[in-house]
Amino acid sequence: MKIILVGATGTIGKAIDQELSQAHEVIRVSKSKSDYLVDLTDEDSIRALFEKVGEYDALVSAAGNVHFGDLADMTSKEYEIGLRDKLMGQVNLVLIGKETIRDGGSFTLTSGVLNEDPIRMGSSAAMVNGALAGFITGASIEMPRGIRLNLVSPTVVEEAWDAYGPFFPGFKAVPTSLVAKAYHKSVAGLQTGQIYRVY
Amino acid sequence: MKIILVGATGTIGKAIDQELSQAHEVIRVSKSKSDYLVDLTDEDSIRALFEKVGEYDALVSAAGNVHFGDLADMTSKEYEIGLRDKLMGQVNLVLIGKETIRDGGSFTLTSGVLNEDPIRMGSSAAMVNGALAGFITGASIEMPRGIRLNLVSPTVVEEAWDAYGPFFPGFKAVPTSLVAKAYHKSVAGLQTGQIYRVY
Repeated sequence: MKIILVGATGTIGKAIDQELSQAHEVIRVSKSKSDYLVDLTDEDSIRALFEKVGEYDALVSAAGNVHFGDLADMTSKEYEIGLRDKLMGQVNLVLIGKETIRDGGSFTLTSGVLNEDPIRMGSSAAMVNGALAGFITGASIEMPRGIRLNLVSPTVVEEAWDAYGPFFPGFKAVPTSLVAKAYHKSVAGLQTGQIYRVY
Repeated sequence: MKIILVGATGTIGKAIDQELSQAHEVIRVSKSKSDYLVDLTDEDSIRALFEKVGEYDALVSAAGNVHFGDLADMTSKEYEIGLRDKLMGQVNLVLIGKETIRDGGSFTLTSGVLNEDPIRMGSSAAMVNGALAGFITGASIEMPRGIRLNLVSPTVVEEAWDAYGPFFPGFKAVPTSLVAKAYHKSVAGLQTGQIYRVY
């Protein structure tokens, strides 16, 4: 399979790359450090990416930013960051990318644990993760040509524990190699409309 | 209690009004037909509403638009409608309204069934409902001064069946009088971070 991997240079992206590239052609995409570049907040940039790549079999996205901050300090501006980037950035990959994906292809996006197990400063992440879950549920039943649409929801990962651990007191981190398997299941399996939780 | 009811003239809003006004002072708010007016897509309008109302004990919102359309015809523009209106409109009621709500007050927002039981043309509604569920879960744990935050998720209602029934084949409609009880439970009870499903 020819698989587009958006967020290829990220902590989880690198593990997905390792998991998928053993048996598939992986087209590595990131904001600034890969052969293919994309700015998720810019639909023209997304369109240019798909024009360059041509037909493909699957897209995996492990990309997207949200703002973390105390609710007391949050205004609509801070929520807007996640809505533009992690939510609509990934959704636009589906809306635009479904035109050139092959029959029976698949999209796998990334959310996270915080809409089900919330933490301090995580209300924007919780909003965006819930929105992605809703979108996957709603849009997967309308995908044409047997195209599938799934979501991977990972908890905090071991490889990022030094940076993020203090924000996740009492959480059990998982290795990215385990998270990567969920994307593999989504890409190589036949399920659609699923949320693969790796907690 | 002094309760602000946003969306007071809507199908569900009228039933909430009837349920709550028996024992409480209800401040009726809508876009164009009530004593108090608000445009949910305009933060200045929301700010002006709270300045006019002064201190209050609870806010109930049964308002907010989303675009319904086939996934094949949807671009980011159509999703934007729901993100601006039903999602951030209601979220801004909380972000701005928490400054003047009394200690131990409550916010009750409205989502809907479609992120859990999706229908054709409902992918934007599913996204927004999921986002509201995530926000409630994430933000409720950070609310100050014992302020509570809940969500009511109704299915299609009997009173709107003539207009919406064709889009909900096989769904069992519920009466708005039953939906209204969920808001009453949220306002008069002590729970927070809850999603009251009325399916």
